[in-house]
Amino acid sequence: MAEKITPRADDYSKWYLDIVKEAQLADHSDVRGCMVIKPNGYALWEKIQRGLDGLFKATGHVNAYFPLFIPMSFLAKEEEMAEGFAKECAVVTHHRLKSQKGTGLYVDPEAKLEEPLIIRPTSETIIWKTYKGWIQSYRDLPLLINQWCNVVRWEMRTRLFLRTAEFLWQEGHTAHATQDEAEKETRMILMDCYRRFAEEWMAMPVLTGPKSEGQKFPGAVYTLCIEALMQDGKALQAGTSHFLGQNFAKAFDVQFQNDKGQLEYAWATSWGVSTRMIGGLIMTHSDDNGLVTPPRLAATHVVICPLGKNDAERSAAVAAAEKLAADVRGLAREEFFGYEPLSVKVDMMFDKQPGFRFAEYELRGVPVRVEIGPKDIEKQACVVARRDRPGKDGKQFGVPLAGAAERIHDLLKEIQQNLFDRAKKFRDDSTRPVNSYDEFKVEIEKGGFLLGHWDGTRETEDKIQQETAATIRCIPFDRAQEAGKCMVSGKPSAGRVVFARAY
Amino acid sequence: MAEKITPRADDYSKWYLDIVKEAQLADHSDVRGCMVIKPNGYALWEKIQRGLDGLFKATGHVNAYFPLFIPMSFLAKEEEMAEGFAKECAVVTHHRLKSQKGTGLYVDPEAKLEEPLIIRPTSETIIWKTYKGWIQSYRDLPLLINQWCNVVRWEMRTRLFLRTAEFLWQEGHTAHATQDEAEKETRMILMDCYRRFAEEWMAMPVLTGPKSEGQKFPGAVYTLCIEALMQDGKALQAGTSHFLGQNFAKAFDVQFQNDKGQLEYAWATSWGVSTRMIGGLIMTHSDDNGLVTPPRLAATHVVICPLGKNDAERSAAVAAAEKLAADVRGLAREEFFGYEPLSVKVDMMFDKQPGFRFAEYELRGVPVRVEIGPKDIEKQACVVARRDRPGKDGKQFGVPLAGAAERIHDLLKEIQQNLFDRAKKFRDDSTRPVNSYDEFKVEIEKGGFLLGHWDGTRETEDKIQQETAATIRCIPFDRAQEAGKCMVSGKPSAGRVVFARAY
Repeated sequence: MAEKITPRADDYSKWYLDIVKEAQLADHSDVRGCMVIKPNGYALWEKIQRGLDGLFKATGHVNAYFPLFIPMSFLAKEEEMAEGFAKECAVVTHHRLKSQKGTGLYVDPEAKLEEPLIIRPTSETIIWKTYKGWIQSYRDLPLLINQWCNVVRWEMRTRLFLRTAEFLWQEGHTAHATQDEAEKETRMILMDCYRRFAEEWMAMPVLTGPKSEGQKFPGAVYTLCIEALMQDGKALQAGTSHFLGQNFAKAFDVQFQNDKGQLEYAWATSWGVSTRMIGGLIMTHSDDNGLVTPPRLAATHVVICPLGKNDAERSAAVAAAEKLAADVRGLAREEFFGYEPLSVKVDMMFDKQPGFRFAEYELRGVPVRVEIGPKDIEKQACVVARRDRPGKDGKQFGVPLAGAAERIHDLLKEIQQNLFDRAKKFRDDSTRPVNSYDEFKVEIEKGGFLLGHWDGTRETEDKIQQETAATIRCIPFDRAQEAGKCMVSGKPSAGRVVFARAY
Repeated sequence: MAEKITPRADDYSKWYLDIVKEAQLADHSDVRGCMVIKPNGYALWEKIQRGLDGLFKATGHVNAYFPLFIPMSFLAKEEEMAEGFAKECAVVTHHRLKSQKGTGLYVDPEAKLEEPLIIRPTSETIIWKTYKGWIQSYRDLPLLINQWCNVVRWEMRTRLFLRTAEFLWQEGHTAHATQDEAEKETRMILMDCYRRFAEEWMAMPVLTGPKSEGQKFPGAVYTLCIEALMQDGKALQAGTSHFLGQNFAKAFDVQFQNDKGQLEYAWATSWGVSTRMIGGLIMTHSDDNGLVTPPRLAATHVVICPLGKNDAERSAAVAAAEKLAADVRGLAREEFFGYEPLSVKVDMMFDKQPGFRFAEYELRGVPVRVEIGPKDIEKQACVVARRDRPGKDGKQFGVPLAGAAERIHDLLKEIQQNLFDRAKKFRDDSTRPVNSYDEFKVEIEKGGFLLGHWDGTRETEDKIQQETAATIRCIPFDRAQEAGKCMVSGKPSAGRVVFARAY
């Protein structure tokens, strides 16, 4: 167990922050609520961007960039959005500083803006204002646009990656000629991009389905979500896809001529995932030794540690390590890991003990570690250790140097699958039905996803949240058709919904 | 000639804006001075990012992300920086809006920040404040960090891509244990990353060397630059790399213990290029038919237009086009074009005349167009047109379908080289010595780079700028050792410097 990391069993919250700190993923900044994403953390974000961006493009989307600033009057145009986002935000009111001898800088009162500008908390308003100029005819539709950017929400309580005042995300904003097409887009993004990315890249199983009315996005007709379960039994909303109806088209008067020559308002979707994903990645896979990274998102796939007590032993080990590294980098490239060569590092920290070196790479979450020492070279072999095995069982094994590159390549795929299977088993084992509100109140303390009957009303949903701090996470697409009675009100329910306490 | 594009000879400025508009690269936004980067423009930025990021990483740099907000007091810490950047910037003073029935939203006066926050115009201050926590010992150095982000400078006169209030860029910030190492980094970034990227990816020849004192970055000891010449004879500063000495380390008290156990201030560099590059790309290569894109930065490398008058002809042409597209995509991948398959589009706009379709792709700057019609299929051939030839000479030629993919691949490389050679010839032809201030005043009206003797003083530099609107663009690394007399003051000069009017 890594000495610097508080064990999960002792204090899960502290464990999380220890991982973020010790694996050097992020830091608090000197600006309230804003984080510094350190190189190791940003490397994860780059991999997430690359994977998701590929899925967006494969489904016909293109990237663009819209302004950081939103005039205050734009926010006011859509009522629910103004309610939901105008409250806590960063407001730009002036455009000049002046300097004064001795007292430093001050805001020039004469440089007050005519209209305050808001730092975008999300970009529906500025984008739909822009779309008005782009959409005249059904021939201009669909518009399938995404942007990667920073957004700001003035959060009071922040936690690195999970909730910060400024964060990085992508936000897709599409415009369609028909309701049907927009609804299909909303669902396609959820299932073919977000679910697929979460499960196949992040190895993080997710539930999919709509949010309840109480949990939907301000301005949406409905919100679909992917919902994951963390190791402490709390839920994490990992991505959302919103069907916005004609709300924004009406707010910004975006009408188009349909193929019959009539004017219609356009139909909209929006969807986003953020650096919060990194928090989900950490809390799904990592252990008391540090970060665990699924191979498809690892910045470094393999670290090779040559070992030796003297120069002769070391130089022989380094030569074997460099040869193996070149072999792994030279493997045929697959879309599975992106088209670039696998990333292999040869560790040269000979001034440190092997145990220190191994612990360091475990802490950083490198999926495969290889050791090559004098005895291995004698046997023309190496020792391979897989990061996904927390204990000693099956963690390390000898592999002949001939064919080691191919074995390592296969092992990376095995680890990717194993992480998913393990997380799915945990999620499934933590998901259970509850049949009364009393049972619910007992079970919710143990964490996990609880499947309970609910009468579909906002009133009941709010009552449960107030009394138990649990929320409806998702109404799964694939839930069983099972009529029942609401565990709180006794009124009829069409099927169970998923409750949990959440991040 | 494209009808929508004003010819360069008529109005160069209008030509530039027509290209930006008609090739759908960017739009003005509803927020003063901010642009919307449209999908075609953003695709160029993505290619620029990919190419530059590869060069940064190959030279040992990693990416990170620092906060958007800079507390006002941080800006005040470095005197020159406060002078240079505090003047026109976006100032956040409040963190909440309230809504009022009927009158919409207003800024909550009770939510005033204790200290105003500035939207970063550049991030030296927040980054060096952060580095203070990261640097204790020489073992923590060097720090070789870059970030890709948005920045804001409240510009009064804006021009799409070239000068906007918000723009996208990368900013590298490195910390070193010695002055020598920091100076080597400053120069390495300029020569091995910026110059190489400009010349080998953008096909845009650049001068390299320091700026004069009057043109350096506020807070720098000196600034190195890459400087390009646009087709109208005006210069464009395309990238800068700054040696910052210990200025920021001293402003933020970043000291480290050197290998002798003594405390020292760290040595700094910073360097950046921005979406301004896209303006440079347009103005270096494009013509009166529209955008011209160097193949290494093209989002679509090849467009294939099947032609036919009836269904039978069209379906045969489409089949041949799809086959050729698959062949081109299936070519062995080279780092030259990135590791991804070449991007090939098969155009299906059969409802438009061929001439319209061809003009459309010329306008958008696709490097290679292929036409396949019934007569071509009879001959088992296709017609290939290269975008880099403005007139009819050598623009189009027949190629047998067998081997066409390989021929197109080679042609893309030829076009890349030809664009560079052409731009370099233009630049070299537009560069000439001037030997008196009178001659200078006549020649500067004709545009281009003028090589003149200068006495090295700020006074003379300012006088020339006031009287002629020309500035010293660069003191080239490779200038001839040629003693002379300043063309203005008659004082001694150690060699000629490069003057031009600039964007």
